[in-house]
Amino acid sequence: MHWFIKSLPRPRLAVIVAATGVATAALLVARPSVAYAAGVDDEAAFVFNTFSFLIWGALVMWMCAGFTMLESGSVRTKNASMICLKNIGLYSIAALAYFFVGYNLMYTDLIAGVIGTPNLLYGPTAAEVSLLGDPEGAAAEVLETGAGYSAMSDWFFQMVFVATAASIVSGALAERVKVWSFFLFVLLLTAIIYPIVGAWTWGGGWLKELGFSDFAGSTIVHSTGGWAALAGLIVVGPRLGKFRRDGTVRPTPPSNILVVTLGVFILWFGWIGFNGGSQLGLASAKDAVAMSVVIANTNLAAAAGVIVALLVARPILGRIDLFAILNGAIAGLVSITARPDITEHYWAVIIGAIGGLVVVLGLKLLEKIKLDDVVGAVPAHLFAGIWGTLAVSITGGAPIHIQLLGIVSIGAAVFAVSLGLWKLMDLTIKARVSYDVERLGQDAGELRMESYPEFVLMPDMEEDD
Amino acid sequence: MHWFIKSLPRPRLAVIVAATGVATAALLVARPSVAYAAGVDDEAAFVFNTFSFLIWGALVMWMCAGFTMLESGSVRTKNASMICLKNIGLYSIAALAYFFVGYNLMYTDLIAGVIGTPNLLYGPTAAEVSLLGDPEGAAAEVLETGAGYSAMSDWFFQMVFVATAASIVSGALAERVKVWSFFLFVLLLTAIIYPIVGAWTWGGGWLKELGFSDFAGSTIVHSTGGWAALAGLIVVGPRLGKFRRDGTVRPTPPSNILVVTLGVFILWFGWIGFNGGSQLGLASAKDAVAMSVVIANTNLAAAAGVIVALLVARPILGRIDLFAILNGAIAGLVSITARPDITEHYWAVIIGAIGGLVVVLGLKLLEKIKLDDVVGAVPAHLFAGIWGTLAVSITGGAPIHIQLLGIVSIGAAVFAVSLGLWKLMDLTIKARVSYDVERLGQDAGELRMESYPEFVLMPDMEEDD
Amino acid sequence: MHWFIKSLPRPRLAVIVAATGVATAALLVARPSVAYAAGVDDEAAFVFNTFSFLIWGALVMWMCAGFTMLESGSVRTKNASMICLKNIGLYSIAALAYFFVGYNLMYTDLIAGVIGTPNLLYGPTAAEVSLLGDPEGAAAEVLETGAGYSAMSDWFFQMVFVATAASIVSGALAERVKVWSFFLFVLLLTAIIYPIVGAWTWGGGWLKELGFSDFAGSTIVHSTGGWAALAGLIVVGPRLGKFRRDGTVRPTPPSNILVVTLGVFILWFGWIGFNGGSQLGLASAKDAVAMSVVIANTNLAAAAGVIVALLVARPILGRIDLFAILNGAIAGLVSITARPDITEHYWAVIIGAIGGLVVVLGLKLLEKIKLDDVVGAVPAHLFAGIWGTLAVSITGGAPIHIQLLGIVSIGAAVFAVSLGLWKLMDLTIKARVSYDVERLGQDAGELRMESYPEFVLMPDMEEDD
Repeated sequence: MHWFIKSLPRPRLAVIVAATGVATAALLVARPSVAYAAGVDDEAAFVFNTFSFLIWGALVMWMCAGFTMLESGSVRTKNASMICLKNIGLYSIAALAYFFVGYNLMYTDLIAGVIGTPNLLYGPTAAEVSLLGDPEGAAAEVLETGAGYSAMSDWFFQMVFVATAASIVSGALAERVKVWSFFLFVLLLTAIIYPIVGAWTWGGGWLKELGFSDFAGSTIVHSTGGWAALAGLIVVGPRLGKFRRDGTVRPTPPSNILVVTLGVFILWFGWIGFNGGSQLGLASAKDAVAMSVVIANTNLAAAAGVIVALLVARPILGRIDLFAILNGAIAGLVSITARPDITEHYWAVIIGAIGGLVVVLGLKLLEKIKLDDVVGAVPAHLFAGIWGTLAVSITGGAPIHIQLLGIVSIGAAVFAVSLGLWKLMDLTIKARVSYDVERLGQDAGELRMESYPEFVLMPDMEEDD
Repeated sequence: MHWFIKSLPRPRLAVIVAATGVATAALLVARPSVAYAAGVDDEAAFVFNTFSFLIWGALVMWMCAGFTMLESGSVRTKNASMICLKNIGLYSIAALAYFFVGYNLMYTDLIAGVIGTPNLLYGPTAAEVSLLGDPEGAAAEVLETGAGYSAMSDWFFQMVFVATAASIVSGALAERVKVWSFFLFVLLLTAIIYPIVGAWTWGGGWLKELGFSDFAGSTIVHSTGGWAALAGLIVVGPRLGKFRRDGTVRPTPPSNILVVTLGVFILWFGWIGFNGGSQLGLASAKDAVAMSVVIANTNLAAAAGVIVALLVARPILGRIDLFAILNGAIAGLVSITARPDITEHYWAVIIGAIGGLVVVLGLKLLEKIKLDDVVGAVPAHLFAGIWGTLAVSITGGAPIHIQLLGIVSIGAAVFAVSLGLWKLMDLTIKARVSYDVERLGQDAGELRMESYPEFVLMPDMEEDD
Repeated sequence: MHWFIKSLPRPRLAVIVAATGVATAALLVARPSVAYAAGVDDEAAFVFNTFSFLIWGALVMWMCAGFTMLESGSVRTKNASMICLKNIGLYSIAALAYFFVGYNLMYTDLIAGVIGTPNLLYGPTAAEVSLLGDPEGAAAEVLETGAGYSAMSDWFFQMVFVATAASIVSGALAERVKVWSFFLFVLLLTAIIYPIVGAWTWGGGWLKELGFSDFAGSTIVHSTGGWAALAGLIVVGPRLGKFRRDGTVRPTPPSNILVVTLGVFILWFGWIGFNGGSQLGLASAKDAVAMSVVIANTNLAAAAGVIVALLVARPILGRIDLFAILNGAIAGLVSITARPDITEHYWAVIIGAIGGLVVVLGLKLLEKIKLDDVVGAVPAHLFAGIWGTLAVSITGGAPIHIQLLGIVSIGAAVFAVSLGLWKLMDLTIKARVSYDVERLGQDAGELRMESYPEFVLMPDMEEDD
């Protein structure tokens, strides 16, 4: 480019230097956008976060199948169809109740939610609706004004959580709770109770402000379900003949252990989404690292729960108890749910291991105090949930008195309201099926559809108590 | 930089202004790429879209397990192994038939597909193959010339759809259709019938041009399967003893309701991918918002279908019928499949709810007109599919006469061809098993492998009609 | 801008040209960053790759449920609970063993791993931990120093692979291997054996250097499991009464074929993640295309395996054997696992088809040589795994002598060590349950929990041999 340099005005060098300097300055000015490009840009971030909610939410939705299998395989064959009905029913009720009422209560100002302007028909934001209609600039508005993910992806992810809480109740009370009373309870639990206590932390409420820490809901989801179940257990009482007059306990082994095992594997699989998705974002190296840590811990804690339950079942329960071992997996998962984001993974092993111990001891305890929890939901979800929430403090998270405050306040609220509701239903529409229906089984007595109509089954002899 | 300014040729200011102006201009020219970076860049978009097809496609593939469980739990135990064989066989036939013939027919020029240059060995595009071989510039070519996602991810997603259509047939005709005739029908359905009627809309054909609207296939997938099943029902006839000489209907309850329930949950789970993936893209805020809306609606419609079926089962069918309620979920899902992208979510609730009503009425209707559809596939997939396709117009989508045209033209084509095929098979290789095989069951009679060989089963007494 | 040009020093044109030239040069310098933005940026790439490991890893984790169902449905009812225990136990042992020992052995310098500084508490990298603590600049460090994905996402994906290898063993030896011996073997397999032979290729060891090619582990995962199972079969011996004194073989059909079929569908579904995730990256058009090719081939090979097994079962085994056909799917999947990345998809059909033939011939062979493999794990995983690894050469991949070297060296190592271990256990703690436990079944004899306690079952008469 000799001719070009020649043609420059003198002093030539100065012009070249000047132009180069300015161009460099221009590049430096442009730099921020280049540096920006080295992060995840806003629109890609929106897509990542939204997709994370959707796919992990799908796995959590699938946990309902896990509960259904766990429970329908655990009950006696004469009540297995009813468990299937209760579970598909509860998921459906939860979806609608949370859509029309619950989500609104949980994630908007509580007072406004209750008495103000309830947004009963929740939906995409105005900017999102306008984006779907495609006007120029709407994407920018969604990205600037939104939460970094789509409104309905968040709704979906939260909705499948509320269904989990409700699922816990159906297993504990199986084989004697009336189906319509159960559905009414689920309606109130998913429309009102869970959303209100959930709002205290996840809705930005007072527990959140105090620093209560519960990553994916050891207390908020699992203990809530557990307390609701416990209240029901107290009101509804044990199954006929479970606790014999001579003080012994009648064994009621799962009627189909393959299906129970399948249910536990479904839950384990789904829990990867339950905890992984609770990172609530995917769109940065930090989120991706955190999500990986969460999933690794979730898997380790469940494994540790299984191994400990395997080792302690014989000394505590007198037998290698597959049912207790399967509950060890659940307990490990519930335990780690409050703090799966710890980077020292051996803590996940310890937390899950203690969860496995807690559930076996809990199963023993419930038998002692004559609470008849058909699937071990209270030990696995409530006891392990309390343990996991306390473990947050042990591993250096939130202070223990705050964790205790969260456990107690949520527990007291859920338990008191649930107890009142179960009692009220018991006095009015009845919470428990009649003696005849219970003897016959809910499948034949209430639903008139047997679970295994072509199979010859043992008569169920011992129920008169 | 005093010395520098000093050294500039006079008029110094002018030079500085000039250089700055040019640099700014340079930045403005560069701007598009910066603004571009604020959207999702081409390569990331390609990855998002491709991954969406793969992961949601995996969930749709999994729906085959759902159909298998739904059907094998619904039939009598003496035919459950055969249903397992038919389902794993149909999925495999569909995969190969759609690979060698169907996809090519559906997504290329139809005439070229049939008589021109059929691309029997479908595969990645030339640019994609070259990209895998890694030459410089191939990525750019893939991004510029391609569809914005990889060829085989699209193939996979479409392939699992065709398997869904075929799955619908196996359930309706269970317990008496000959396995080899069924497989032959599946081969023709997945290689030819479905691809041709599918091409009318999704292949860019005449229905598409007229504006027929069917988001994920209420008509194209589900009604197609339903019409094919209906034709088979008419030719093959009801099971022995289903409709008694005295006009009453013999109840044939599911033999394993746990497995049926599992199947429905699998379908619900898979449907998140079926409808969500049918957004056909993920790589923008708009796509992500739309996919979220689709998934929320899918979930709401299924829930509403369950609740309505639960409420109307007793008045219409005389019992809380778990089987009908489970079909309510399917019907809700089928109903919303034509228009899951509506942002007023209450419409999803209404559409699904009416789907639940449709399926219960449909089950009743089929009994009246003595069509023996073992799993309720025609009410759940055909009737609810018609309803869902019409609902597109009700909610402000495509005009109703276009929707009717789509329903009728696809229905007429599939039904007529299927009826001909079933009839032809019946006259030649027989569509139905022999009286002896049917009495004995297909498991022992055709397959010689019982589903539950160690279980003592009730004798199946009443089949002589 | 006339005034502006006027004010430029003469020669004006030269200045304009100069400034424009410099600005263009500036843009060209800036170009790399713009071009960069047209690819996937580093942070988004990190997110894509990590998320791919997590979601596909979740599907592989789910394969454990598939093995559990396949096996628990295949055994006689008297041993089905024990299979559930063995499978949830093996997954848990694998998770912990691979965390504390195996991963470290496999992916660090082997000598350092064994005698040097074993990193027994594997975890996120230091940069990742610091990123989670949020200091400025840590993301850049993670992106620059890391592997392009998070450490724990890789760990999770590799961990679920080791569980797959262990799952293969439990099925083959079902109904007579002692549970504690089995668990001890799993511990050694997952902590030491698999990691060491795996390190030869995937840890960057000598087989990798020689060019051995095994995409997702036909040999490394499946044959490893198969050889370990074969060694066990030889030491433990056939089930009582399986091979009668008169030379005939006692049929032991699956006790619950629905559950077996479900298991195969789970495995098929999970295998999409097993092979798809083994692309080890998602963050470019190339990776996305490759992953799509891999998944399409995986699906095609499985389908071809089913169809061929369906066609050859009758000539070879004398019946349309659903169990063999289901194993055809597994064999197709195992066969393609060494080379699912081939772009000529008809090869996937051929490879899977031959896999289907191999498994049926293998089932026949095992009966001939009186090896009692309860679920056909050796034919499906070992024989098909060898075939698939050789098929890499046939389709133009690594040279056949290298593939043979890999097959033989891994086979010899795994088989010899496993044989020694099984023999040692047999001489000390016993590998096989007592005659009484075996007659009674492990459920009642060892575990004291029956799988179907309420069902009336056929007595199992013929076991005295």
